[in-house]
Amino acid sequence: MKIGWIGTGIMGRSMASHVQKAGHELYLYNRTKSKADDLIRRGGTWCDTPVDVAGNASIVFTMVGFPYDVEEVYLGEKGILSIKNTCRIVVDMTTSKPSLAKTIADVASERGIASLDAPVSGGDIGARDATLAIMAGGDEKTYDEVLPLFQLMGKTISYMGTAGAGQHTKMCNQILIAGTIIGVCESLLYAGRAGLDEQSVINIIGKGAASSWSINNLGPRIVQGNYDPGFFVEHFIKDMGIALQEAEAIGLSLPGLALVHQLYVAVKAQGHGRMGTQALMLALKKMNGE
Amino acid sequence: MKIGWIGTGIMGRSMASHVQKAGHELYLYNRTKSKADDLIRRGGTWCDTPVDVAGNASIVFTMVGFPYDVEEVYLGEKGILSIKNTCRIVVDMTTSKPSLAKTIADVASERGIASLDAPVSGGDIGARDATLAIMAGGDEKTYDEVLPLFQLMGKTISYMGTAGAGQHTKMCNQILIAGTIIGVCESLLYAGRAGLDEQSVINIIGKGAASSWSINNLGPRIVQGNYDPGFFVEHFIKDMGIALQEAEAIGLSLPGLALVHQLYVAVKAQGHGRMGTQALMLALKKMNGE
Repeated sequence: MKIGWIGTGIMGRSMASHVQKAGHELYLYNRTKSKADDLIRRGGTWCDTPVDVAGNASIVFTMVGFPYDVEEVYLGEKGILSIKNTCRIVVDMTTSKPSLAKTIADVASERGIASLDAPVSGGDIGARDATLAIMAGGDEKTYDEVLPLFQLMGKTISYMGTAGAGQHTKMCNQILIAGTIIGVCESLLYAGRAGLDEQSVINIIGKGAASSWSINNLGPRIVQGNYDPGFFVEHFIKDMGIALQEAEAIGLSLPGLALVHQLYVAVKAQGHGRMGTQALMLALKKMNGE
Repeated sequence: MKIGWIGTGIMGRSMASHVQKAGHELYLYNRTKSKADDLIRRGGTWCDTPVDVAGNASIVFTMVGFPYDVEEVYLGEKGILSIKNTCRIVVDMTTSKPSLAKTIADVASERGIASLDAPVSGGDIGARDATLAIMAGGDEKTYDEVLPLFQLMGKTISYMGTAGAGQHTKMCNQILIAGTIIGVCESLLYAGRAGLDEQSVINIIGKGAASSWSINNLGPRIVQGNYDPGFFVEHFIKDMGIALQEAEAIGLSLPGLALVHQLYVAVKAQGHGRMGTQALMLALKKMNGE
């Protein structure tokens, strides 16, 4: 099948490569062309604009950075939806605003194009190993048609409802992580100050009712002082910001999320925006005089 | 061996019964005698005061409610340590103050008695099935001696350091849970308001980087409106209160824990102190007009 792929950063590149390896023909666009080189070398066709991608492919996937990138790629001057073209389905896999997903669905529909919002979780490793979780919103028939392609990229794939439902589900995921991670950092900070061996603490509390992916995966990195990014602080700030905006829009106060969001803004203010989310520990340490 | 057991509530009764079944002779005290009836019927000996228990047994375990109960049982007029007696080792398994554990260790030491603080996690089910996690502080030789008895009650048992280290580790456990659970409740509240099917959301986000015991065990109860206690709100408030006090004492600000603690105070103010910790959802719903 002729597949368009826009956005070949760390995540997008891996995901597109799984689609390419399965024998599909790729039409590619990325802001920085060099990041698509590998995919071009393996037979992908470069296109100069998003709308050119959509003019060549029947299904277009997008995996870009921020909601304003999504807006540009779909609704901008050279955007996918700027003219009527051959593309039948568009799938935005960026973590972006649910409200924007609805807008895109509406505009696409006017052009006779079906759309899905299908953000992922699982990070660079999930993308590389094709083990991502994919949470999709949009028309269910369209979802069924795209499912075999999702299965090339992910392991846990779920249809969540109409347009925006995929993004809303991703927001639930990020809200859950926000709470869990402040628990992890405050717990380990307390452990260190109380004179406990932090790894021993993780070994025992990481097994029962307090257990989580975060304590067992990010906890040991914190103990080792390893703040390398699995997921960037600045992307997490973006996601929490979207969740807070959407929550306010539906009349919902989320005090825990708001607090964690603010602490991450501090992490970034301290110059750690390109560290991993476990760097929340650095802000908590700093505010506690360490 | 002659074992003393003080505190035969839901947790204590199950734990003591495992010790009894292994063939040890129990000497029992509880504020409400009837709660020890089963253990007495199976051969346990009732004692009228904590100090009487300590006069009969060589190792005394305590599993009571609040730090002031621990203080009364150890340091009160008829407390275990009120006179020199035959007991060689005391083990407090209540979740209590690390600073109190140190005081008890000091006073016990003056009486020639060794002490451990060994709080547990795993709740009523863990107590019943002898699958508790047990985190112990105190003298390591004493820990080694008591270990075979711990193994009758728990599965994951760990020596964490000198007196108070068990309690400090339990505080780490509770701090971690506090963060995780606000993430769970805010995430599911958002999910419902966004029109998503909450159980479907749990099914997908409960598997990846957002996964935790809480989302997978308490999440479905929240979705079903089941606020029955696995662990009481009022006990969790106690634990978080201890953690905040101890943290302040070691010069540590924990903003996430403080927020969750306050929200749980609201849960209790709404009359839900005897519900399970998942009832945090009720406070969040109420403050959001539901």
